[in-house]
Amino acid sequence: MTPPATASTPTRSPEAIRAEREAFYARIGQDNLAPLWEQLHNLVTKTPTSACVPAHWSYNQVRAYITEATDLITAQEAERRVLILENPGLRGKAAITTSLYAGLQCILPGEVARAHRHSQSALRLILEGDGAYTSVNGEKTIMRRGDFVTTPSWTFHDHGNDSDKPMVWLDGLDVQLVAALDASFAESSNDDQQALQRPVGDSVLRYGNGMAPVDWTPAPNKASPLFCYPYARTRESLFGMQAGGQPDPCLGYKLRYIDPLTGGAPMPTMGAYAQLLPRGMTTLPYQCSSGTVFAVLEGEVDVQVNDTRFTAVPNDVFVIPSWAAHTFSVRDDAVLFSFSDRPVQEALALYRENRSGRV
Amino acid sequence: MTPPATASTPTRSPEAIRAEREAFYARIGQDNLAPLWEQLHNLVTKTPTSACVPAHWSYNQVRAYITEATDLITAQEAERRVLILENPGLRGKAAITTSLYAGLQCILPGEVARAHRHSQSALRLILEGDGAYTSVNGEKTIMRRGDFVTTPSWTFHDHGNDSDKPMVWLDGLDVQLVAALDASFAESSNDDQQALQRPVGDSVLRYGNGMAPVDWTPAPNKASPLFCYPYARTRESLFGMQAGGQPDPCLGYKLRYIDPLTGGAPMPTMGAYAQLLPRGMTTLPYQCSSGTVFAVLEGEVDVQVNDTRFTAVPNDVFVIPSWAAHTFSVRDDAVLFSFSDRPVQEALALYRENRSGRV
Amino acid sequence: MTPPATASTPTRSPEAIRAEREAFYARIGQDNLAPLWEQLHNLVTKTPTSACVPAHWSYNQVRAYITEATDLITAQEAERRVLILENPGLRGKAAITTSLYAGLQCILPGEVARAHRHSQSALRLILEGDGAYTSVNGEKTIMRRGDFVTTPSWTFHDHGNDSDKPMVWLDGLDVQLVAALDASFAESSNDDQQALQRPVGDSVLRYGNGMAPVDWTPAPNKASPLFCYPYARTRESLFGMQAGGQPDPCLGYKLRYIDPLTGGAPMPTMGAYAQLLPRGMTTLPYQCSSGTVFAVLEGEVDVQVNDTRFTAVPNDVFVIPSWAAHTFSVRDDAVLFSFSDRPVQEALALYRENRSGRV
Amino acid sequence: MTPPATASTPTRSPEAIRAEREAFYARIGQDNLAPLWEQLHNLVTKTPTSACVPAHWSYNQVRAYITEATDLITAQEAERRVLILENPGLRGKAAITTSLYAGLQCILPGEVARAHRHSQSALRLILEGDGAYTSVNGEKTIMRRGDFVTTPSWTFHDHGNDSDKPMVWLDGLDVQLVAALDASFAESSNDDQQALQRPVGDSVLRYGNGMAPVDWTPAPNKASPLFCYPYARTRESLFGMQAGGQPDPCLGYKLRYIDPLTGGAPMPTMGAYAQLLPRGMTTLPYQCSSGTVFAVLEGEVDVQVNDTRFTAVPNDVFVIPSWAAHTFSVRDDAVLFSFSDRPVQEALALYRENRSGRV
Repeated sequence: MTPPATASTPTRSPEAIRAEREAFYARIGQDNLAPLWEQLHNLVTKTPTSACVPAHWSYNQVRAYITEATDLITAQEAERRVLILENPGLRGKAAITTSLYAGLQCILPGEVARAHRHSQSALRLILEGDGAYTSVNGEKTIMRRGDFVTTPSWTFHDHGNDSDKPMVWLDGLDVQLVAALDASFAESSNDDQQALQRPVGDSVLRYGNGMAPVDWTPAPNKASPLFCYPYARTRESLFGMQAGGQPDPCLGYKLRYIDPLTGGAPMPTMGAYAQLLPRGMTTLPYQCSSGTVFAVLEGEVDVQVNDTRFTAVPNDVFVIPSWAAHTFSVRDDAVLFSFSDRPVQEALALYRENRSGRV
Repeated sequence: MTPPATASTPTRSPEAIRAEREAFYARIGQDNLAPLWEQLHNLVTKTPTSACVPAHWSYNQVRAYITEATDLITAQEAERRVLILENPGLRGKAAITTSLYAGLQCILPGEVARAHRHSQSALRLILEGDGAYTSVNGEKTIMRRGDFVTTPSWTFHDHGNDSDKPMVWLDGLDVQLVAALDASFAESSNDDQQALQRPVGDSVLRYGNGMAPVDWTPAPNKASPLFCYPYARTRESLFGMQAGGQPDPCLGYKLRYIDPLTGGAPMPTMGAYAQLLPRGMTTLPYQCSSGTVFAVLEGEVDVQVNDTRFTAVPNDVFVIPSWAAHTFSVRDDAVLFSFSDRPVQEALALYRENRSGRV
Repeated sequence: MTPPATASTPTRSPEAIRAEREAFYARIGQDNLAPLWEQLHNLVTKTPTSACVPAHWSYNQVRAYITEATDLITAQEAERRVLILENPGLRGKAAITTSLYAGLQCILPGEVARAHRHSQSALRLILEGDGAYTSVNGEKTIMRRGDFVTTPSWTFHDHGNDSDKPMVWLDGLDVQLVAALDASFAESSNDDQQALQRPVGDSVLRYGNGMAPVDWTPAPNKASPLFCYPYARTRESLFGMQAGGQPDPCLGYKLRYIDPLTGGAPMPTMGAYAQLLPRGMTTLPYQCSSGTVFAVLEGEVDVQVNDTRFTAVPNDVFVIPSWAAHTFSVRDDAVLFSFSDRPVQEALALYRENRSGRV
Repeated sequence: MTPPATASTPTRSPEAIRAEREAFYARIGQDNLAPLWEQLHNLVTKTPTSACVPAHWSYNQVRAYITEATDLITAQEAERRVLILENPGLRGKAAITTSLYAGLQCILPGEVARAHRHSQSALRLILEGDGAYTSVNGEKTIMRRGDFVTTPSWTFHDHGNDSDKPMVWLDGLDVQLVAALDASFAESSNDDQQALQRPVGDSVLRYGNGMAPVDWTPAPNKASPLFCYPYARTRESLFGMQAGGQPDPCLGYKLRYIDPLTGGAPMPTMGAYAQLLPRGMTTLPYQCSSGTVFAVLEGEVDVQVNDTRFTAVPNDVFVIPSWAAHTFSVRDDAVLFSFSDRPVQEALALYRENRSGRV
């Protein structure tokens, strides 16, 4: 083995060295090899650098498209009639962040979104309507605005609307994460609607009152057996917490939804949160390594993300990319729902945040 | 809201319906929306369907390129002189599976690969040479062929070769997983080589003998404090286990490397394994949802993956994609090292395998 | 060393052998030694064999003594004015089972039981009155009949009665377990009543609604941050569960109180439970290795424990020893509260139960 | 209800009040009630106050008794021929601390201690001899001086001596803890010696080399699948650690034995430790809430416990009660083995220690 070229032949021109290397790269490329040193700093970056950008969807604007979509295709034909919220930096990938998918789903009165199951975990935040249902693993839950409902990995689930108005909700799924792991499995049910095995609301009775059946054992999907979190309770907690102390300067009053049998996230791949930002508050800059999708449940906030600024009102959805510094200026007491891959990053020891107020 | 078009206008042609929809998709696309129903079954697939394919790298062939690379660039200039093993189905992505990176790194006598740290976890399997070192968090470990060494997330690490021969090892990193989570952070050290705080081999003494310091507490990176697993011990276990019973029909005698303080994987994002396949054995078909990278430490095996077949000999590397059924026909007692994202999939309740012997 | 005596001298009489052994035991006893073989089968028994016996305390009868006690001593002088429920088989040990203590505590209007803290964990079940409080770690909770309240290990706690009626509750503590571990520490507060740091009911808002503050971290005492479980919620769950399926033949509808941040017991040393036994049900015999203290919240049951039989009505307390087979015959829809050391036995892999219906 | 007597009748004499109370106590005593206030401060003490005292057993002295015992009774007749080390403060209870039992067991060449199993967990530290065996769950381990061997809860175990010399070891069991929980179950085997299912040393191969079988799942008894910890490895670690830094001023170089599949104690009820105290060191005073049994493997130390002082040499056993401050003055490089209920106290959040060097 001769000494390295760069050391032994100092008189060669940079162009010659470059040409020699490129020729080498071309040759080894034929054998499925590539030089790490040409791309190390693109693969291992100093801070997150994905193409994901901040974006804001006005519910008012999207709602019109939803109506159009209900004219264009039935829930039955669509299986799931959803408008995907595609991140402008990630077009064509059905992604709102690098790891997550979001969409707005609508079911008209009398429609059914038939039963299926898949590796992907899904969450719902109800934006409009009252009285449609989601059934999960033999139990139906009736959904009202603001309710947070999960359909964990590999659970049969179907939706239906027995009310007399359209029902719209925000869907969040871990589609891109599951794709990155190449671990997607799916199955249709033989039945449009699954048979019910327990009464409506049973999971709240069994797991939502600070108790659990004495024989309860964890499910293989590591998901919370409590799969509906009524907004009435969330709201009571958020507004009640104000009497207990000052808001966090970056986050206001922020709660995370928990699996009451573990204290962890309701599903292992996605965390969900609700926060109250009191009127008049302007939060300090905050950064975290989990790109986060927000939906406004109450109030009005001006959102500043790096150089992007927009005003969000109820039912609007917006996304903050990983490590993007952002602040909220609160025009009216605001309740924000949000979800992200934070539990994944925490499980893998990758999660970081910056609450110093300095970017 | 009018009834859905497909129901109300049965006489319209499929082409007209399609055109109307395409016009709608174009319009909503301008507002960063897309119809889920056109791609639901590509996003949520019945089984894993990535572009990752089986591939095999002959060490004999790659070794010549490594020598060439040492002539082309110094370790100092390269920071890490590594030939990436790129999956033929994922070219341009520096990926061997959808979530993982692999490469072959070489350090010549007297060279140093300078200290840095990053969110990405890395593992090393020593293929050639004896006596180079990896330093992690103030402790140096001397590497010998077959040793398995980790450099966990956000630990400063550097490599050097004080021996008189080149040293080559297989690198495995979670680069693509960290990219999917958009959570890459990195930092250079001010020093090429980090200052040592403990003697060589200290982690094996402290954590590798069935004991641990009475005051030990977990590190934030959730990694094993034991970061070197000598091949001598692995080999003793693999060959000794033969007296304890028959091999698994799919896996032979297979062990996983553990963090002795948790029983989990040495690092939270990657599992590592060693298996002994006795001469003459032909394994039954096996599928798992974690694409897996193998390196041959001893022996010789014919590998059949779906319709691909190759023979692997010592130091060869090959990759089996997620859910690809594969069998081994063992020409000579073989020891295979392997690594995958299995601990991630297990933590997220996504891992599946099929050992039925039926595909 | 000569061969063993029993083998070598077959002709010696049993009395001689016995005398020789007794002499040996006396000699070694002087050096703090004793022969295991004389007591092995008393130390390691085939099934639990403690002196703990079934017992029943009629609230009606005890209530009169409580009134007398309030005439005899002030809460201030007593520090805690409690009548200990002593197991008849364990008199003089202040024990209701081998590991647990129980008592009935009374506070009159205007009285205060001053702040202290100790290693021992305590639980309260409110039997009579409405409006007294317990303060724990700077937070006051108002107690109503049936509420379950905890004062975890090493938390300052005080009680007071701002209502206009006496307040009586059942206390349960792990006194004997802590004594067995020789790990008792205690401290008085400088203040009779601790300063409050959060509003009344704050813990239910923060931890009782399926959510938790995003920054919550576990306390060193491993106790639930939710320390009040209102009976209204418990009752809703118990009666609601009836629509979801048949009662367990041994247990009826039985829930355990949980720490919603771990799914474990509210405190690590004691589990607490509530069960609904529908009118007319006669349960199958049940045995478990945790001696259990019961209090009747509603209804009326005939309890059969081995050869003991009694009828329990609201506010009565009774105890079932470890492994004692027992059945309930339910005269009127009954709600039973209970507590035991089951979480300890589960943590130590000692817990057993027999639900076969056969003793 | 009249106002409390002490307030309303200030003129009554203390003797009258006392008499009235005693009469009350006598009356309620008949109904299995007792006044807490008369004994609160004995039940809930400021620091541990059991009757357990420091004690020291000279192996030289005890060894003579062991020889006598082998003359008095066969291993077969005794089932286990053990001299119990009874704490002088706890005579008649077969206890060395409030929660633990210790004894010295001897098996002569050719003898067998027949197979049985029980809820109680047991540990062994080999003091004398080489080549006897313990079989646990179908696997035999050959024991040498200094080896630490476990027989976890509810595992069949038997011992035998195929060597040509007597074998003596220290037994440690959680007898008193299990009694406090009233959770003792036991069963004899039909066979004196259990059938072997795996080769000698298999558990070290499978679990002791930083690896574990890929299909391993936890046992219900929560015990380490590694059940033999050879002294050669322990010694290598202890002496090797000296190069890595200064000894802890209270503890020297101290390691705990771990379950490599959890990082916890080898058995859930007892922790085991080994520490090296370098020649010439005098440790600072140390207190912990777990009474601890020590055995000397090497060297010689003067032990000061409160006002008690003794010198311990190889194979001597001594006990330090809960919270007793103690120091070691090391005459010659000493290796101490120890065991205690610390894992129990840690699981229950009761464990405390004081390393301040101040008592």
